[in-house]
Amino acid sequence: MLTRVKSAVANFMGGIMAGSSGSEHGGGGCGGSDLPLRFPYGRPEFLGLSQDEVECSADHIARPILILKETRRLPWATGYAEVINAGKSTHNEDQASCEVLTVKKKAGAITSTPNRNSAKRRSSLPNGEGLQLKENSESEGVSCHYWSLFDGHAGSGAAVVASRLLQHHVTEQLQDIVEILKNSAVLPPTCLGEEPDHTPANSRTLTRAASLRGGVGAPGSPSTPPTRFFTEKKIPHECLVIGALESAFKEMDLQIERERSSYSISGGCTALIVICLLGKLYVANAGDSRAIIIRNGEIIPMSSEFTPETERQRLQYLAFMQPHLLGNEFTHLEFPRRVQRKELGKKMLYRDFNMTGWAYKTIEDDDLKFPLIYGEGKKARVMATIGVTRGLGDHDLKVHDSNIYIKPFLSSAPERAPQKNTVSSHFYVEPKTKPPRNNNKKPKRKEIRLAATRGGDKGELEEGAQKVRLPVIR
Amino acid sequence: MLTRVKSAVANFMGGIMAGSSGSEHGGGGCGGSDLPLRFPYGRPEFLGLSQDEVECSADHIARPILILKETRRLPWATGYAEVINAGKSTHNEDQASCEVLTVKKKAGAITSTPNRNSAKRRSSLPNGEGLQLKENSESEGVSCHYWSLFDGHAGSGAAVVASRLLQHHVTEQLQDIVEILKNSAVLPPTCLGEEPDHTPANSRTLTRAASLRGGVGAPGSPSTPPTRFFTEKKIPHECLVIGALESAFKEMDLQIERERSSYSISGGCTALIVICLLGKLYVANAGDSRAIIIRNGEIIPMSSEFTPETERQRLQYLAFMQPHLLGNEFTHLEFPRRVQRKELGKKMLYRDFNMTGWAYKTIEDDDLKFPLIYGEGKKARVMATIGVTRGLGDHDLKVHDSNIYIKPFLSSAPERAPQKNTVSSHFYVEPKTKPPRNNNKKPKRKEIRLAATRGGDKGELEEGAQKVRLPVIR
Repeated sequence: MLTRVKSAVANFMGGIMAGSSGSEHGGGGCGGSDLPLRFPYGRPEFLGLSQDEVECSADHIARPILILKETRRLPWATGYAEVINAGKSTHNEDQASCEVLTVKKKAGAITSTPNRNSAKRRSSLPNGEGLQLKENSESEGVSCHYWSLFDGHAGSGAAVVASRLLQHHVTEQLQDIVEILKNSAVLPPTCLGEEPDHTPANSRTLTRAASLRGGVGAPGSPSTPPTRFFTEKKIPHECLVIGALESAFKEMDLQIERERSSYSISGGCTALIVICLLGKLYVANAGDSRAIIIRNGEIIPMSSEFTPETERQRLQYLAFMQPHLLGNEFTHLEFPRRVQRKELGKKMLYRDFNMTGWAYKTIEDDDLKFPLIYGEGKKARVMATIGVTRGLGDHDLKVHDSNIYIKPFLSSAPERAPQKNTVSSHFYVEPKTKPPRNNNKKPKRKEIRLAATRGGDKGELEEGAQKVRLPVIR
Repeated sequence: MLTRVKSAVANFMGGIMAGSSGSEHGGGGCGGSDLPLRFPYGRPEFLGLSQDEVECSADHIARPILILKETRRLPWATGYAEVINAGKSTHNEDQASCEVLTVKKKAGAITSTPNRNSAKRRSSLPNGEGLQLKENSESEGVSCHYWSLFDGHAGSGAAVVASRLLQHHVTEQLQDIVEILKNSAVLPPTCLGEEPDHTPANSRTLTRAASLRGGVGAPGSPSTPPTRFFTEKKIPHECLVIGALESAFKEMDLQIERERSSYSISGGCTALIVICLLGKLYVANAGDSRAIIIRNGEIIPMSSEFTPETERQRLQYLAFMQPHLLGNEFTHLEFPRRVQRKELGKKMLYRDFNMTGWAYKTIEDDDLKFPLIYGEGKKARVMATIGVTRGLGDHDLKVHDSNIYIKPFLSSAPERAPQKNTVSSHFYVEPKTKPPRNNNKKPKRKEIRLAATRGGDKGELEEGAQKVRLPVIR
């Protein structure tokens, strides 16, 4: 019992998870696993820190703000700053990366090993000279800028792995479609190996009945006309890129799931990536980080956050449809607060999965179970355990002191917002602010930032109401 | 087979449903049912048409536009116009109503008969003098304006019933909370029979672990503090109204389901209602009708449409989770067009429930099934049968020539948009435009309109690019 209460209090104090170990170091070691790390722990490659500097960055007293060294350039004059979360975990569980990816058409069949680096990838390291796109240097391939940000929890393992491997999955997925993307004048073919369709769609709809039963014009009937007889949706090139990013997130999560039998990959992480490809900016976000563009002082949101509150209906619906996932300990209904036994038979406000308003219901025994989603704002939790609802990893995460897995409720599917790239844009990504663990007098700081400003401008980061000016990093 | 193809062609020609009978008259008679009608067929009460006029309104050659008679006033100088859908159904399957509801606190226990008129309701008929709210005339009750619009399909039964009864369900639901709503200075009590909570929320979060296991402060433990110790969401009054409208839609749909064993209630209908209650305008929409406000020439959307395309991911997710609903004839995956057998093993574009982009997948046998959602724009259908995904009725609707029910995919849950009522607002509701059944030379017309303008202004209805000026009805 003592452990339970202690864990509950730790949870209350600001940790994302009950039972989260703050003492582990690096990409593994959760629960005393003897498995090797998938990758050694470190800070983002583009910072180019020595091992000593990495250690210093985790000083919870000084809490140094890490920024890019003057000699290190990132594309779009990207600025970056991070600071350790006060007292929450020994080391910073967040990760980031910035690279130029070169996507070339795959030779031969699709490779089945997701993390095989079949595409050339230039890193900003070790020369520190940064990532400049060589315009048209690779006549066959397409280059794109790639930024990523991972907000880790319950260990840094998933965030470290994702910061090293997600770009490979992105490249892998884009390889399949790079030739199609380059040919922007022709719509993507519906079926590979067929001639692209140049005729207008929607000339006629054939219904299911005729189609299924082999009516006139149905496939397989003697008078079957060519494909373009049917209604056919035209899929623009951008949708293929979005699909590729979605697939990359899914593959990354599957790889983490697979490899945790061979490696120690602790915890989970949100994932937010941005790629600039063929003149368009794509943002894929699974979690509660934020991407915004600052253009002429105007802030343009480029993503929306996934939290237990914004995803309430999806989560409740899943629990309603598959109640066994609740392990008989939780109810999928939402109440404004915990129901007490003495309130049985009384009427209390509640919300079901298909409601956005509230209504009164008579309290029954089942309503005494803990609510699937509980708490408000930053304290909102799924099954009293986790405060984010999308991301990577967390495959072994269970409700404290139970056998109930959280993962079925966590989606790795990102939300995407394609946006035309205007060269004058400011690009700016920030993770969710987390409250410091203890209420000491230190000013509240955000953990990590990723910002790009156009050369010549001053980088400006907002910290709540307070504005902090950072030196422009070139 | 001939029937199947015939039905398929009829479907193609613009009917919403395969097998829809255009010959029935009134609120029932589907499939030769011997059951009595729940209500006789007619046009909206506020039009005050004679039986002769009702017959004339269904003239498919003249297609008269029906508007309000000069002597009939509706609140907010509501304008209204309708015209029969060219050749699609013998009679107009759409319905509308406009009333003043007076909501009084229920005496004693909650009545269990939903359509019992326990609240006073003033109708615009028979005196034709319209619906003026008597300010403060009922010291105990609250009056509100109510507008409704129902776009019927496959018979007028559901639309007729909903236009007569949904307002009772709304009244019924509001009765439970009217006393709470009137007391706007105090937040709604979380639990009825308790004192409303005046203390600020969020003073402390108690975790599930402590709460479930009886830790300090958990309910039932000896030191249990009063309720306000726990995190408690504050629910504003508007959320109760929204919840009441949601419950009203659900109850209306359940009543139709129940009563179809006693009455003939054919088809289904979308439902869009607007109420103006205590100075706020609430829009609840289940279907693809639209509510907009025109304010100083600016159009403010007040609802969004539910169609197979906008609800694709919800429908695919349901089918993914409960594949038996597809009856082994459909696939929950989306393809840009029908997959042909000869394409087995090739790669084709597809979308799953958790994707907004498109990716290529290798075609398997299962992909040859008909897609759950097929077609684009106005031709998009769920299981090749129905073009709307929310509404009332349709409990017996099956995929043509099969035993697969559509209803599990149709939600009666409305979307709501609460909006502050500005008296200078123009209010305007229009149903989806439907294409005429045959391509004759007649200009395309919309079926039914409901519009309110402030006295003194000209009512203005947009018909595609063409603007139609209607006389202002007072």
